[in-house]
Amino acid sequence: MKSLKTLRRDAEDIFAASLTAVDPVRLIRQALKRKGSALIAGSLRYDLNRFRRILVVGAGKASAAMARGVEQVLGGRINEGMVIVKYGHKVSLDTIQLVEAGHPVPDEAGIRGTRRILDLLAGTGRDDLVLCLLSGGGSALFDAYEGEISLADVQKATHLLLSCGAEISEINTVRKHISRVKGGRLAAQAAPSTLLTLILSDVIGDPLDVIASGPTVPDPTTFTDALAVLKKHHLLETFPRSIREYLSEGCSGRIPETPDRSSPLFRKVKNRIVGNNEMAVRAALLRARKLGYRPMVLTTVLSGEAREAAGFLAAVAVEVSRRDRPVRKPACLIAGGETTVTIRGNGRGGRNQEMALSAALAIAGQKGIVFLCGGTDGTDGPTDAAGAMVDGRTAGRAAMRGLDLDSFLNRNDSYNFFHRLDGHIKTGPTLTNVMDLVLILVV
Amino acid sequence: MKSLKTLRRDAEDIFAASLTAVDPVRLIRQALKRKGSALIAGSLRYDLNRFRRILVVGAGKASAAMARGVEQVLGGRINEGMVIVKYGHKVSLDTIQLVEAGHPVPDEAGIRGTRRILDLLAGTGRDDLVLCLLSGGGSALFDAYEGEISLADVQKATHLLLSCGAEISEINTVRKHISRVKGGRLAAQAAPSTLLTLILSDVIGDPLDVIASGPTVPDPTTFTDALAVLKKHHLLETFPRSIREYLSEGCSGRIPETPDRSSPLFRKVKNRIVGNNEMAVRAALLRARKLGYRPMVLTTVLSGEAREAAGFLAAVAVEVSRRDRPVRKPACLIAGGETTVTIRGNGRGGRNQEMALSAALAIAGQKGIVFLCGGTDGTDGPTDAAGAMVDGRTAGRAAMRGLDLDSFLNRNDSYNFFHRLDGHIKTGPTLTNVMDLVLILVV
Repeated sequence: MKSLKTLRRDAEDIFAASLTAVDPVRLIRQALKRKGSALIAGSLRYDLNRFRRILVVGAGKASAAMARGVEQVLGGRINEGMVIVKYGHKVSLDTIQLVEAGHPVPDEAGIRGTRRILDLLAGTGRDDLVLCLLSGGGSALFDAYEGEISLADVQKATHLLLSCGAEISEINTVRKHISRVKGGRLAAQAAPSTLLTLILSDVIGDPLDVIASGPTVPDPTTFTDALAVLKKHHLLETFPRSIREYLSEGCSGRIPETPDRSSPLFRKVKNRIVGNNEMAVRAALLRARKLGYRPMVLTTVLSGEAREAAGFLAAVAVEVSRRDRPVRKPACLIAGGETTVTIRGNGRGGRNQEMALSAALAIAGQKGIVFLCGGTDGTDGPTDAAGAMVDGRTAGRAAMRGLDLDSFLNRNDSYNFFHRLDGHIKTGPTLTNVMDLVLILVV
Repeated sequence: MKSLKTLRRDAEDIFAASLTAVDPVRLIRQALKRKGSALIAGSLRYDLNRFRRILVVGAGKASAAMARGVEQVLGGRINEGMVIVKYGHKVSLDTIQLVEAGHPVPDEAGIRGTRRILDLLAGTGRDDLVLCLLSGGGSALFDAYEGEISLADVQKATHLLLSCGAEISEINTVRKHISRVKGGRLAAQAAPSTLLTLILSDVIGDPLDVIASGPTVPDPTTFTDALAVLKKHHLLETFPRSIREYLSEGCSGRIPETPDRSSPLFRKVKNRIVGNNEMAVRAALLRARKLGYRPMVLTTVLSGEAREAAGFLAAVAVEVSRRDRPVRKPACLIAGGETTVTIRGNGRGGRNQEMALSAALAIAGQKGIVFLCGGTDGTDGPTDAAGAMVDGRTAGRAAMRGLDLDSFLNRNDSYNFFHRLDGHIKTGPTLTNVMDLVLILVV
């Protein structure tokens, strides 16, 4: 039987294999091939001779790395380009320019970068090809507003919407109608050029209209819907005047509606997912098998409260350990998705570290179980760790050092727990983002 | 592909097969066989000619049905007996007497019944065989106190322990030291007779010392431990005087300690699990296979918050539906265990109905998924339903009838939701109790 030390090394190895599989440069090079004068993206085929210019735009934590992939495929054929990344996510590029901006809280740098991209696209014509690169974080990094609306107005509006109990779909309806980019507006700006959007998905189920708020995807909602959200939640009085007036103008027909499915603007637009959680999960499965484990994917749509999710995954792991069900030992259980943390304390941590901390309690005393929770972006919550790894001895080791696991959990202080117990998984920023992975080895 | 109607019928069929498998009469008849003058219980063999008398005692929701099973095996050979059941759980018996008492809140009827059982055992000798039948609910139904301690004192003490944040193991340490039955005290009373305890487990992992508080199982804790719990939680001032004084006397050695593992009292005592959640799960698996589903047991140690458990199980079901993982369709996912509900509203419901309600949200719009949550005792929470069944249309049907699913969930009002939407599973009290089952059919 493998030792705990081997299990821990294997779990890190499997996690690393997943990260390699979703490296943006690699994903772009898989998705986009050049054959002579043809650019091939899956079933799509573009004759490069037909295009006068090729422009590359984009935003998101992975967009710089994606841009590098595009440069590797298209090289000197790219005429111009610009992508917006989170501060610290720079990558050296040849032709495509790079702007760093604020995330998760948007800042003026992002707005300035977005305006420059819009200016770039304003000059495109029917014989141009635009490649748009989107990934998680695009919603905050890639935005500019219409009319009199300021960043402060949008921040106040977002705060009001979040605290009134509005659903995320309602919030997005409002956001899309004050943005010059979201809800298909970017596609409108790029028309009549040919547009291909390549997407690294950080959302469960890969919904195109949600990832980065769907800049090149039809929007089924209207100005009237947006105003109805404000009415429903009694925000007409308190909402910033500039936004209220803009939405009213939209309702009266004086501003063009976000383009819907029937719009001719989308005739030359294609959206393609080039990477997602499924790819990371599949790589984990293959690597686990290679290391001698029986892999089993439980789900790729994991959500819910992090500490509760840990309990259920641990219940399956214990079942494997005790009864070789639902898969025989040595086994690797795999789950992908993204949980949430309801913050109750003022500690430091992230959803993956909190899940691992809760798992340590749930598997305390169990032999031959290792539980790794990691964010594929390498930064779990506002910390420098990707996640953490625990085993059946973690709770006991903590107790011996006088660390009260329950109390760290109740304070949402998972980072400091693992900092003191040396349980972090640290990868540094990976420049990719396809949500989270849970890997559980049971022998 | 099977219709939703067929799926729902199959789910009920599988649940019924599980209940049949854990019927207490059947379980006792499987566990206890008579061959000539021998009574055989698994690897145990008792020569009935050696015993002058056979006595049957017991307590728990299933104890009357278990007693009937024993009467069917031993018939006229039983000399005397008494079991304590919850009000409404009566079964007609030949020789063994039956007492009905309060559960989950203990009452004087339970204490009187317990005293009569203790009196019965006081007269036993070395040539008697005592069969003890225990099942869920035994902790409340089967208890009598030492010295001056009254039921009101114990109720006050329990309340104080529960509200001070003491762990369940700490609470049990105190309970076992004020009881004339728990923590091995019943075995002491039955000595020097031969004692065989048959147990229907309603606790995850079947821990003998926890089920019905272990009346015939060694107790590793001491009077000193019990007093330490009061000190730790600052209850020495507020705790009922009778209990404080009794525990102090115990510490000073004037009262015999609960018997531990080394005690000779256990030399002729055997404890055997005759039924548990695993048996219900295995029956579900066999029945599902017979109906044409690929069965997969995810866990038999399910716990945690009911609504969160639903989310996790739904995430696996959706994975099966979308990607034929971790098992191919048509599939039957099976989970056993017992969840909890953190009560936030003042509605009516139970953990199984709440789990089903939460599942209805999680699988809303999904085709070909049916989700059944049921308590094997037939009474989920303080309601007349065993649980509930939902599918991908449940949320939509509720909306059409103007029922706000979220609001029912937030009020913990699952019973009324399913009452109005006709989604209950009703079996009536089943007289058994091996926790809960979740059955998810995916086609």
